[in-house]
Amino acid sequence: MSVTDELLANNARYAETFSGPLPLPPAKHVAVVACMDARLNVYGALGLAEGDAHVIRNAGGVITEDEIRSLAISQRLLGTEEIILIHHTDCGMLTFTDDGFKQSIEDEVGIKPPWAAEAFSDVEADVRQSIARVKASPFVPKKDSVRGFVFDVATGRLTEVA
Amino acid sequence: MSVTDELLANNARYAETFSGPLPLPPAKHVAVVACMDARLNVYGALGLAEGDAHVIRNAGGVITEDEIRSLAISQRLLGTEEIILIHHTDCGMLTFTDDGFKQSIEDEVGIKPPWAAEAFSDVEADVRQSIARVKASPFVPKKDSVRGFVFDVATGRLTEVA
Repeated sequence: MSVTDELLANNARYAETFSGPLPLPPAKHVAVVACMDARLNVYGALGLAEGDAHVIRNAGGVITEDEIRSLAISQRLLGTEEIILIHHTDCGMLTFTDDGFKQSIEDEVGIKPPWAAEAFSDVEADVRQSIARVKASPFVPKKDSVRGFVFDVATGRLTEVA
Repeated sequence: MSVTDELLANNARYAETFSGPLPLPPAKHVAVVACMDARLNVYGALGLAEGDAHVIRNAGGVITEDEIRSLAISQRLLGTEEIILIHHTDCGMLTFTDDGFKQSIEDEVGIKPPWAAEAFSDVEADVRQSIARVKASPFVPKKDSVRGFVFDVATGRLTEVA
């Protein structure tokens, strides 16, 4: 049995006690942008329940064009007003460089990715970079509460980046 | 108190019983790409625990350049091998068109977004589109298990898209 099949069996159990549907717009009017890291359970770490918040995730929890697209849809069409950005300690993005990663792909498949890998060497600095990218976007209208945090994978605790 | 502050209070309670750190590479060697929808709790719906899987999310659960970036990092640097794609019923992406959404932004702020909004009119067809985009990418090496599903927000159940 593949892992996918194992997770589908888990889903059958989840559905047994599931009660829906909830409304489409997030009840808490908040959108979270977080790293895809497996140790960062966003619902658990923020005490979210189904229906509470949009959760956007990618490698690093960085802000690229696609996160601006998601945030624009979240705020303009579905009423979210606060943004929470979450990076974390021991991030994989600290372990390589854009140039090195892209060169390794080019060496293997002959094509250099046309995108930035978005590696970073300082987690807190990259949280600030993400906040700055959101604030600079003309497509995200509500910026009164755009706050950034580092999740500690040892303690489970969020620390705000000033 | 803002919602963000309320969620930080939840985090303090979460950290009280948190035990870390777990290893960086996902234990189940799987990456999930899902919609940001608030009603789709990926950890709950798949029975994932902290440390199990990469979770990538955006508006629609679509595959754009940024999801290829995240999947490339997930597979090439952190050892994931299976990909699970999840769209869902009653998705906000069914309620608008790219042209209409972009025109409304241009009307309001004077700038037309240079990106596609990635709206769709058929959830299952867009799951197939996402699978096709992953399979077409030269940057994602492991494609033996790329499976797509629709999450029913009424029942909590995943149905595979053939």
